[in-house]
Amino acid sequence: MKVVFIGSGNVATHMAMALKGVGNGIVQVYSRTSENAELLADRVGAEPIDNLEDIYCTADFYIFSVKDDILPEIVAQMPSTTGIWAHTAGSIPVSVLSPHKKRGALYPLQTFSREREVNFQDIPLFIEGESDETAILLKELAETISGNVHFLSGDKRRILHLAAVFACNFTNHMYTLASEIMSEEEIPFHLLNPLINETAAKVTVMEPKAAQTGPAVRFDEKVMQKHLELLKDPLKREIYSLLSSSIHKVSGNRGANETQNV
Amino acid sequence: MKVVFIGSGNVATHMAMALKGVGNGIVQVYSRTSENAELLADRVGAEPIDNLEDIYCTADFYIFSVKDDILPEIVAQMPSTTGIWAHTAGSIPVSVLSPHKKRGALYPLQTFSREREVNFQDIPLFIEGESDETAILLKELAETISGNVHFLSGDKRRILHLAAVFACNFTNHMYTLASEIMSEEEIPFHLLNPLINETAAKVTVMEPKAAQTGPAVRFDEKVMQKHLELLKDPLKREIYSLLSSSIHKVSGNRGANETQNV
Repeated sequence: MKVVFIGSGNVATHMAMALKGVGNGIVQVYSRTSENAELLADRVGAEPIDNLEDIYCTADFYIFSVKDDILPEIVAQMPSTTGIWAHTAGSIPVSVLSPHKKRGALYPLQTFSREREVNFQDIPLFIEGESDETAILLKELAETISGNVHFLSGDKRRILHLAAVFACNFTNHMYTLASEIMSEEEIPFHLLNPLINETAAKVTVMEPKAAQTGPAVRFDEKVMQKHLELLKDPLKREIYSLLSSSIHKVSGNRGANETQNV
Repeated sequence: MKVVFIGSGNVATHMAMALKGVGNGIVQVYSRTSENAELLADRVGAEPIDNLEDIYCTADFYIFSVKDDILPEIVAQMPSTTGIWAHTAGSIPVSVLSPHKKRGALYPLQTFSREREVNFQDIPLFIEGESDETAILLKELAETISGNVHFLSGDKRRILHLAAVFACNFTNHMYTLASEIMSEEEIPFHLLNPLINETAAKVTVMEPKAAQTGPAVRFDEKVMQKHLELLKDPLKREIYSLLSSSIHKVSGNRGANETQNV
């Protein structure tokens, strides 16, 4: 398949490399910044462009992977092309691509950092198309790089994205706050690795609600009070109190008589 | 070594079984509830007791693994014994055991659920003793079950416990909230597994601050506004806003031009 990438960020980079890796042709990479276009284009043997007027017009797929805010203005500048247009955004409806008839979404549910390799084969990809035909063609493309491809409506995709913000972005922020708390006392963050891994592994086999441990679910007020006293930063104290209340609300008094360490 | 367990909750259960598994003798298990004492005692070939007057007085180690709140009253009822007394609590000073001379702490940094097996060999164990001699004896015992044993002062142990509340308890609560959001729309929670695993795996090789992705670090106000509108529960909205502010505060505007999907 001939694929054009509009965008050269983390998602575009990882997806273009995965598509190239299984034999698709990446024809062009567009970025407003020519250096960024070149960086990705070089890695996938594509032509870098920084002007949408230069878009190759007879590719099979045009993958839009840019910041949500600028997607409408990019679409407005796109020339007429053949093929399917698809974006990679969780919270944007497919209608944003409506100047073009064959349009859809190809949403990878994963966190991408530039310097970290990911195995696309395991990444859930969620497909929506304006018609069954478009959806099926997008699914076929997606299945060349992932064994975990699903049809999902735009309404459900944005709910999934919202859930992912909690499970990934907010979770990572909890790691950041833990790391700040430890670094003040010069305790190495890596000591938490077995705990972080086990916390993540547990919820692949248990309901997260059943996996909950710690002072909030035990409603151990003395420990919670001591923790609040140890937190000098008012924002961390506010987060500690709010999340402890939310845990207690969800869990009731389930764990009141158990020691669970963290 | 001859070990007596005071307590029969998740921590006591997993630790007693690990100690038994490498050839230590678990002499007795005490619980206020005789059924609970029997449950663990049966698994490790120990005598179950529900009266502290029946404590075997010449063991090598007495491990106190009870809810923090009731530890002082348990200690007050303990008869005089030989050996070392050690508790397993993150946020309690060793002085709580002060009626006894040889006292310490043996804190396993892990989340324990009754129904889930854990490999003790990888669990970081943190040792404190009232004297070097006690600390060394506790370390020797700890090293029979874990390859990850460290000396740590009580002041640092409570900081570590506080950090673990963020990295484990609050993280698990993020999974719970994601699961609630998805179940309302009948989207299966297991679709998040690759994302949850990658989010945890990233911070074993990158600083969590550098691993942060999502609308808050990009400061993508439109997406954040849409997410708040999708959240019907006021408590989830409050958590979303507070954590997004905190992410933005920590990260500044680092990721503003990147698409990162979640």
